[in-house]
Amino acid sequence: MTSKKLLNSVVGCADDALNGLVACNPQLQLLEGHRVALRSDLDSLKGKVALLSGGGSGHEPAHAGFVGKGMLTGVIAGAVFTSPAVGSILAAIRAVAQAGTVGTLLIVKNYTGDRLNFGLAREQAQAEGIPVEMVVIGDDSAFTVLKKAGRRGLCGTVLIHKVAGALAEAGMGLEEITNRVSVVAKAMGTLGVSLSSCSVPGSKPTFELASNEVELGLGIHGEAGVRRVKMATADEIVTLMLNHMTDASSASHVPVPSGSSVVLMVNNLGGLSFLELGIIADAAVRSLEGRGVKVARALVGTFMSALEMPGVSLTLLLVDEPLLKLIDAETTAAAWPNVAKVSVTGRKRSRAAPTEPREAPDPTEAGGIASKQMALVLERVCTTLLSLEEYLNALDRAAGDGDCGTTHSRAARAIQEWLKEGPPPASPAQLLYKLSVLLLEKMGGSSGALYGLFLTAAAQPLKSKTDLPAWSAAMDAGLEAMQKYGKAAPGDRTMLDSLWAAGQELQAWKSPGADLISVLINAVKSAKAAAEATKNMEAGAGRASYISSAQLDQPDPGAVAAASILSAILEALQSQDM
Amino acid sequence: MTSKKLLNSVVGCADDALNGLVACNPQLQLLEGHRVALRSDLDSLKGKVALLSGGGSGHEPAHAGFVGKGMLTGVIAGAVFTSPAVGSILAAIRAVAQAGTVGTLLIVKNYTGDRLNFGLAREQAQAEGIPVEMVVIGDDSAFTVLKKAGRRGLCGTVLIHKVAGALAEAGMGLEEITNRVSVVAKAMGTLGVSLSSCSVPGSKPTFELASNEVELGLGIHGEAGVRRVKMATADEIVTLMLNHMTDASSASHVPVPSGSSVVLMVNNLGGLSFLELGIIADAAVRSLEGRGVKVARALVGTFMSALEMPGVSLTLLLVDEPLLKLIDAETTAAAWPNVAKVSVTGRKRSRAAPTEPREAPDPTEAGGIASKQMALVLERVCTTLLSLEEYLNALDRAAGDGDCGTTHSRAARAIQEWLKEGPPPASPAQLLYKLSVLLLEKMGGSSGALYGLFLTAAAQPLKSKTDLPAWSAAMDAGLEAMQKYGKAAPGDRTMLDSLWAAGQELQAWKSPGADLISVLINAVKSAKAAAEATKNMEAGAGRASYISSAQLDQPDPGAVAAASILSAILEALQSQDM
Repeated sequence: MTSKKLLNSVVGCADDALNGLVACNPQLQLLEGHRVALRSDLDSLKGKVALLSGGGSGHEPAHAGFVGKGMLTGVIAGAVFTSPAVGSILAAIRAVAQAGTVGTLLIVKNYTGDRLNFGLAREQAQAEGIPVEMVVIGDDSAFTVLKKAGRRGLCGTVLIHKVAGALAEAGMGLEEITNRVSVVAKAMGTLGVSLSSCSVPGSKPTFELASNEVELGLGIHGEAGVRRVKMATADEIVTLMLNHMTDASSASHVPVPSGSSVVLMVNNLGGLSFLELGIIADAAVRSLEGRGVKVARALVGTFMSALEMPGVSLTLLLVDEPLLKLIDAETTAAAWPNVAKVSVTGRKRSRAAPTEPREAPDPTEAGGIASKQMALVLERVCTTLLSLEEYLNALDRAAGDGDCGTTHSRAARAIQEWLKEGPPPASPAQLLYKLSVLLLEKMGGSSGALYGLFLTAAAQPLKSKTDLPAWSAAMDAGLEAMQKYGKAAPGDRTMLDSLWAAGQELQAWKSPGADLISVLINAVKSAKAAAEATKNMEAGAGRASYISSAQLDQPDPGAVAAASILSAILEALQSQDM
Repeated sequence: MTSKKLLNSVVGCADDALNGLVACNPQLQLLEGHRVALRSDLDSLKGKVALLSGGGSGHEPAHAGFVGKGMLTGVIAGAVFTSPAVGSILAAIRAVAQAGTVGTLLIVKNYTGDRLNFGLAREQAQAEGIPVEMVVIGDDSAFTVLKKAGRRGLCGTVLIHKVAGALAEAGMGLEEITNRVSVVAKAMGTLGVSLSSCSVPGSKPTFELASNEVELGLGIHGEAGVRRVKMATADEIVTLMLNHMTDASSASHVPVPSGSSVVLMVNNLGGLSFLELGIIADAAVRSLEGRGVKVARALVGTFMSALEMPGVSLTLLLVDEPLLKLIDAETTAAAWPNVAKVSVTGRKRSRAAPTEPREAPDPTEAGGIASKQMALVLERVCTTLLSLEEYLNALDRAAGDGDCGTTHSRAARAIQEWLKEGPPPASPAQLLYKLSVLLLEKMGGSSGALYGLFLTAAAQPLKSKTDLPAWSAAMDAGLEAMQKYGKAAPGDRTMLDSLWAAGQELQAWKSPGADLISVLINAVKSAKAAAEATKNMEAGAGRASYISSAQLDQPDPGAVAAASILSAILEALQSQDM
């Protein structure tokens, strides 16, 4: 069976892809009748050297993504993994010549078809009197014994586009550019590794890999690599790759002794996650620096892909300062990344953590009477929650993932542990804040965050006053924050239902001469009724909102837990006879 | 079984990936003790508003790729697909505040965990006296009936990073930026489609799709979408997506009437090939323009991924000129693409093909005696090749793909067809050039390109003279071009072996008084001997070079064909008694 692809047709896919790239990139224009993309500002290049490259499609963003001021003048694309037509290469050469450029350098990846077709177009153009030179890039470091055909052209070719582009933009002549980039091209190596294959549109995957194997030393046309290795860690695979690429006994190695400077490219072969790409980049920089190599610049991204191949290639280019200037030169090419002109090696990669604000001194005596009362209240809350663990889990199994009781018990045990460390702060604001940090860290999940939010917001009105109106305001602030960030409203079948009902009753604390206990008794009564009422509610937020209301005939466990906490506070206060 | 990944460990993968990104991007620094990346030049932002964003890992290059001048000040990353820790968000807020920024805007994707954790950190920071605002981005256009939780935050968030970044860089205040981006955020929509799922490190794929289905309306955490649709063409799927996104009856639609201007984002969800991404971009631009919508800018690439998910999301943002200026503003963020400040819609996307050079007038009479002689020679070559088809195929089956005879017969029939159209040019240079174009087009493959190269190069010395020394020089030029671009040398078991042997004999034509026929007799004899000798050669180039020499005991079919062509030329000339 052929692989699934988002295409209009197999035969038209290379044209459609190039059309899309040109449509979205106003720097480019198609050459009518050819699969050729040229700079839109071609006529501004009079007197300069033109740079043309290209090859089969399927390597996007190469090559068209590298057309722009400071990089390529144009590209010629073939069908997927197929060399471009000689007629189109010739048409591109003629077009840039007719626009007034003084000569053309063809930058060709070393594959037989590309060499022949670009070579033939070059011969034809030369016969017409157009000065055309050609450099063939072979940066592959896979083969330890060289084949007659030489090293394949891989992702390093993009660096040559960049270097040649900077030289052409600076007005250098054809012969000088050719000589210069030919030297640069010899000082690099590329090696690929992949977790799996890719498939040409309309075809099956080009090779199969076992689930515990990776393919080493691939080209960019879906062909298998030079060997298969057992799956290993990213660090181990990167070390293996760098060893292979720099091994002096390999005919295709790039010599990277300690003390040398390199540009590193970490190239997504197509379908690797960018998470993994970052992990590989991290491993490569560490490994190179561990060898005493200075990483002058690191380019991480998708530059030269092999369709959707889930793999990565590493390219090393030996650089000195003048070459680095060319890599750093400005370009408008869409697929060239924004690279800071700062050495990767040698800079400080981290910054000290910010200072934490000093805690306000506890205005009340920690360990005093108020503190002891707080501890007793908290103890009662904890034992209540622990006793409810199984009941809450059972309620939650009907509507969620059945861990509501476990989550609340975890919070209770964390509070018990914390109380063992010493008396809690007697300042209500500080107590609530400490509890918010504790619950956030130890309770976890949305419940932890919601209680954390509630407590953080509730702590604010208690900073200046701790009378009954302040406690009512604290409840209001907590409820507001919970709604604001949690997006639940009363009636949504959540813990907010009980707390909201209680909050309404606690408004009475704002009246002069209000009584702590009698108001709280009403609040607890109201909260319990609200919790019970959730059994008839449709879930409007949280996990249960994905379950149809017909399946919900029990109260919401979060609402039950919240009502039980309020009830436990009341019981503790009553038993202390405050 | 869990999916194959390039990792060091499941638990460390988010840290490793962020480390890699920071290591390779000197614009970034980590905040010690936290999964936070901040601008390295933080201390240059005194008096400006700081912009912080972030979320779970697995969306790379979001969010750290968008940190830089003109975009974000910093990001906080969670574990894969998990909201960042409140403590780290708070640490980031404190760090930018301590660096002298005058307030912080948190740009948060609308997911419960992110809302809660960023919200909680905001409350805590505000309690410390730091001015912090928060915008929650919900650009998802998947759900036609709104859920309480609202629209999810997807790739459009990156556009908000850009807009807010431009405003902050321009020195705008916290409240004004917050108001401005809140308005912009309401004028956009995003919809995703995928060919398959992704898998969180250490886990299985998050959903399964049949081979003829695609998933529509996905989030970016590997969750399934709102519906599955049958596999269709790229055009059909894009039309379906744009219809869904802009359908006025959908609660989450973005209104894009004819005449409006949009910024289009075509976002790789991770593992889609860039070939397909270009095809989708092409379809999206065509479809939008077909609706009378002006595409002001189009951003194509990987911006907000869902690990390796092979899918794409489209984002539409309604823009006017002032907003476009903010999109166009400079930024150094590594993952923001180089976008030309030119409207996608309305510009000329192609350029006229170059003019072809005028053919030099044929100095000899086409259809005259010379022309007739040429035709007779070519006829003889064609009948010879056609008679050898089966023999050459048989030779090729032992070492290649068995089509050498077929390829040469195809060339012969093409020449015969061409001869029927009229007499060939009598000028040898023009004849060889016409043949090169014909073979290249009709013979195809490497053989077509190699003969094309040979003939193009051979034609050059025959432009000025057509005597025997010029013919010998033509052979030399052809052989040189063939070796130069084809990389084969004599002894490599290719067609070059026969031609090379003949070329050595043809040197005799350069001596004064040399005889056409007698020298050619020697050349043919030598070519046939060389072809026969290839049976003992190891293949050094071409397809047969991948087969061990022990398996090769027949002559190379290309060499046999070349010798036979020379022999046919000789026979024709002899029969014409020249």
